[in-house]
Amino acid sequence: MITVLHVTETPTLFDWAGGSAAFERLINAFYDRVEGDELLTPLFPGGVSDEHRTHVTAWWSEVFGGPAEYSSELGGYHRMVNKHVDLGITPEQRYRFASLMSLAADDAGLPDDPEFRAAFVGYVEWGTRIALANSQPGADIVQQAPVPRWGWGVAPPYQPSN
Amino acid sequence: MITVLHVTETPTLFDWAGGSAAFERLINAFYDRVEGDELLTPLFPGGVSDEHRTHVTAWWSEVFGGPAEYSSELGGYHRMVNKHVDLGITPEQRYRFASLMSLAADDAGLPDDPEFRAAFVGYVEWGTRIALANSQPGADIVQQAPVPRWGWGVAPPYQPSN
Repeated sequence: MITVLHVTETPTLFDWAGGSAAFERLINAFYDRVEGDELLTPLFPGGVSDEHRTHVTAWWSEVFGGPAEYSSELGGYHRMVNKHVDLGITPEQRYRFASLMSLAADDAGLPDDPEFRAAFVGYVEWGTRIALANSQPGADIVQQAPVPRWGWGVAPPYQPSN
Repeated sequence: MITVLHVTETPTLFDWAGGSAAFERLINAFYDRVEGDELLTPLFPGGVSDEHRTHVTAWWSEVFGGPAEYSSELGGYHRMVNKHVDLGITPEQRYRFASLMSLAADDAGLPDDPEFRAAFVGYVEWGTRIALANSQPGADIVQQAPVPRWGWGVAPPYQPSN
């Protein structure tokens, strides 16, 4: 007789979303929307380069629990935070940014279960509000910190036990 | 010599937001926006009554850690879930609902720190996606459940220790 012990582990948000390919689709879908948005294009003069898209994909992958490439290869938190200095992001731009990210998740076919999307928009809200604060002229910016690792928070993924 | 032990406790989202008065402002600001929104007014024929606003305020207060009045006085989860049966909420209506809630939080002067707002939009996303699913004709609806209690999740409130 063989006994199979079924252990349900909580996947990372990165794995639940579909890994690297999913985040690549997400970030490309997002910047495609940004390039057509009159409020946000001033923050990306000349459009959003392939290099920028690749770097941001690495950031998001790491934040959601994927490979730590942004930390090991791309300069980590210090590099990212200095991208926002003195941009003077407005509350309207932040709101638009967060709103488009939610639509881009649909464009990219990310999972749309309530639990994943709650965690997803939670990070978007948190990160965009920190970026807004850091982008104000004269802001007191934390220069060194680990790249954040977001998680499921209040609502873990719904996984029927079977 | 007197030693003061400073214990920093994590407040509920309800208390952090400002208690009952804050949720009353939030829900009124939200429904004021709904009443002027062409996508959402079909879900509220004749406008949003004072009674509806009061009941929804009680729901939100309880979800965010305030008094459990919706459970004890207003019928609890079973009552709420049956408000959505067969409404056939569309993804566009859900997205608009969630988007307006974020603006209503600004209207109502709720705290705008990244941690509070991350938890706030996380619940909005989670709750609206469950409501969307439950509102579809033929949906398999869970009829009895506790009123959810949302929490800070990944990012607890930033409280400088002093």
